[in-house]
Amino acid sequence: MITGDELQSRIRAMQALLKEQQLDGALFIFPIDVYYFSATRQNGALWMPVEGTPTLLIRKSYERARRESPLSDIRPFPSSREFPGVIPETATRIGMTFDVVPVQQRDYYARLLAGREFVDISPFNRQLRSVKSPAELEMLRRSGTSLSAVFAEVPQFLVAGMREIDLAAEFECRLRKAGSEGYVRMRAFNQELFQGLAVSTGGPSFGFFDGAVTGRGLSNASPHGASLEVVERNTPILLDYTGVFQGYITDMTRIFVMGDLDEELKHAFDVSLSIQEMLRASLKPGAICEELFLQAAEMAAQAGLKDNFMGMPGEQARFVGHGVGLELDEFPVLAQGFKMALQQGQTVAIEPKFVFPEKGVIGIENTFAVTAEGGDKLTELPDNIVFM
Amino acid sequence: MITGDELQSRIRAMQALLKEQQLDGALFIFPIDVYYFSATRQNGALWMPVEGTPTLLIRKSYERARRESPLSDIRPFPSSREFPGVIPETATRIGMTFDVVPVQQRDYYARLLAGREFVDISPFNRQLRSVKSPAELEMLRRSGTSLSAVFAEVPQFLVAGMREIDLAAEFECRLRKAGSEGYVRMRAFNQELFQGLAVSTGGPSFGFFDGAVTGRGLSNASPHGASLEVVERNTPILLDYTGVFQGYITDMTRIFVMGDLDEELKHAFDVSLSIQEMLRASLKPGAICEELFLQAAEMAAQAGLKDNFMGMPGEQARFVGHGVGLELDEFPVLAQGFKMALQQGQTVAIEPKFVFPEKGVIGIENTFAVTAEGGDKLTELPDNIVFM
Repeated sequence: MITGDELQSRIRAMQALLKEQQLDGALFIFPIDVYYFSATRQNGALWMPVEGTPTLLIRKSYERARRESPLSDIRPFPSSREFPGVIPETATRIGMTFDVVPVQQRDYYARLLAGREFVDISPFNRQLRSVKSPAELEMLRRSGTSLSAVFAEVPQFLVAGMREIDLAAEFECRLRKAGSEGYVRMRAFNQELFQGLAVSTGGPSFGFFDGAVTGRGLSNASPHGASLEVVERNTPILLDYTGVFQGYITDMTRIFVMGDLDEELKHAFDVSLSIQEMLRASLKPGAICEELFLQAAEMAAQAGLKDNFMGMPGEQARFVGHGVGLELDEFPVLAQGFKMALQQGQTVAIEPKFVFPEKGVIGIENTFAVTAEGGDKLTELPDNIVFM
Repeated sequence: MITGDELQSRIRAMQALLKEQQLDGALFIFPIDVYYFSATRQNGALWMPVEGTPTLLIRKSYERARRESPLSDIRPFPSSREFPGVIPETATRIGMTFDVVPVQQRDYYARLLAGREFVDISPFNRQLRSVKSPAELEMLRRSGTSLSAVFAEVPQFLVAGMREIDLAAEFECRLRKAGSEGYVRMRAFNQELFQGLAVSTGGPSFGFFDGAVTGRGLSNASPHGASLEVVERNTPILLDYTGVFQGYITDMTRIFVMGDLDEELKHAFDVSLSIQEMLRASLKPGAICEELFLQAAEMAAQAGLKDNFMGMPGEQARFVGHGVGLELDEFPVLAQGFKMALQQGQTVAIEPKFVFPEKGVIGIENTFAVTAEGGDKLTELPDNIVFM
C-alpha cells in the first residue's frame, strides 16, 4: 500500500524542514507519527537524522514491524544504556512533537540523551502531513466510497421507535462490516470521539466536543453522541460518521426525516448547501482558510442564522471545516485565526451546520480534496435530506 | 450517580497525598483526571489546593459542567491574563499528571504561572484511583452484568462462514444497544484499543498491543483485533470485550467453538481456569501483585505451557491481570516488577491466556473486586467453553 518510494519522499520532505529549522534530526515516538514515516504502527520510536537513513526502533512487535515497514534499518528497541549509541553525539538539537508527547516521555528521552536540546516540531509536522500524496488520496477516496455506501443503506434500518443509540449501533455494525477500523484518532488534547454521532432530539446539547453538534451521549463520563432518546417524526435525524479505512479517515453528515420538516429547518438546510457549494468552489491552492470561514459565517448571518451557525448559542464553533487523514483533526482548519493558504492535495471535511435548541440540528458534511478546480468530493452521495 | 459527598472524599484523599508530598496543590487538565474529581467530563482544568475548595475552570461546555458537577466553585475558563489570579501566589509547588500531559500543555501553564515548580504526581494519582468506593463498585458491577448479558447472546449470532470482523460487528452492535459507550480509555502512552477483540485464525498474531492476544486487525494502521479471516470450525473463537457503562470499564473473555477442540487446547483452557481460580482466591488485601503473577507463570510452566503463556513466542506479556475502572489500564497490575500490595476495593481483570501459533488462542478473563474473602466476580457468567 505505502511503498518504499513514498516513504522516502515523506522522509526527504521532513528532513528538508529539519534542515530549515537547523535541527540535527527528530525523534518520533507518537504512534501515528511513527506510522506516517515507517508504514508500521508497532510500538517504538523513529530516529530521523537531518540527512541519511532513519532508524526504526521497535519494542513490540519487532517481528511485525519488519514485515510491514519498507525501511532498511529496523532494530529491536535498545536498552537505556545502548540507546544513546543509536543517536550520534553530533546531534545536539533534536525535534519532537510536543503537541502529543507526554512530559514523562520527553523527560525519559532527555535523561537518556543528556545534554541535547529538544525542540518542538509539531506545527510543521502537521503542516507536512496535511498534504496528501496520490496514494493517500486514493486511500481517502476509497474510505469515502465505503463510508458513503453505509450512509446509502440508512433508509433500510432507520425505523420509528428506535432510540438514538439503536440507530448508532445499526450504523456502526454496517460500517464495521464494510471494514472500518473504528478507532478514530484525534490529535488535539482533551478531545476524543467514538465513531460518530446519531442524534435527533438529543442533538441540540451543550458539550465538550469541538464541533457544531455534540449530542447528549450516554452518561456524564461519555457526554457525546447518541443518547437513549427515541428518534421522533418530523424532526431531523442527523448522522455524522467517520469511516476509517487503512487508517485514513473520511467524515460525512446526512439528514434523515420520518415525515416532514419545519420550514425554518428546511431553509437552514438550503443555506448549509449554499455555504458548502461556496466553500467547495473555493477549495483551491492559495485560498486563505480564515477567509473561507469568514465568508461562510457571513452567508449564515445574511440568511438570518448567525445565532444558529455551528453550535449551541454561546458555544458556537469558530470553524466550518477541518483537515482529515490519519487523524480526524488534521491541518488545515477553516477557522478564525487560521491564516494559512490551502495547498493542492490537502483534504478537508466541510461541515456547515445549524443548531436550533428547540427544533433540532441540521446541515451537511462532505470530505473534499483541494484541487486547482476546487474541491473534489471524496464522499460521493447525493446531499439531499432523505425523507421517509 | 456521583454525589457531592463522594467527590469530597476523593478530594480529601488527594489533598492528603499532596500534603505528604509537600505540594501546595495540583492542576488537573487531563479529562479523566478532571472527571474523577468533578463528576463532569467537560473541557477544562481543575485547580485543587492542598487545603480548601477546588476551582473548576471550564472552556466548554460551562453550561453542561454546571449541571453535572456538584462542586461549588465552577467558573468559565479565564483568559491567560486572568489565569494566574486563580492560583494563589503562595502555591509554588504544583502537582500535574505528567504521564498523560503533553509537553506543550505543561509549557503553556508553566508560562502562565512563571516561577512555580511543576511536579509529577502520576504514580500516586493512579494509586488513589485504583481503590473504588462502594458507589464505583456498584457501577462496575452493573457494567459487568450488562457486558455478561451480551456475551450470553453470542450463540444466537455466531454462525459458520462469518469473518472475524462480522462477528465483532454483531457483538459491538448488541453491546452499544445495551448502552456501552464504546470509547475505551487507556492511559499508557502508545496504547490504543477499540472495543475489544473477536479473533479466531487471525488470533495468533504479533502486535503492538500490551496483551496476550492482539489479533491481526484490518490494516497496518490498525493492527489489532478482528481481521477479514473467516472463523473456522474446530478452532477456538475468542471474544475479549470491554463494556463501558457510566464511564466504568469491565473486561471479559470467553471461548466459542463450532465443532470440537484439539486436546492440547482443552488442556490449556483447563489450566487457565486453574490459574484464574488460584488468583481469585488470592485477590485479598495485602497480597503482593508480582507474587501472584509469578505463581500464575509457575502454574503455566508446571503444566508444560511456559512458551504459550500470555502471548506469541518471544513476545509474551509479563502480566496476568490489570486494574480496571475509568481506564482499562489502571493500577494494580499483576505483573513482574509490580511489588505493591492489593487493597480492598481495587478491581482487577484476570486473564490467563495461551497462544498456540498454529492452533489458536485460548483462555479466560473476568473482572473481580478485591475483598477479604478473595475476588468477587463482577462479570457473572459461566466460564466454560461454549461448544456449538
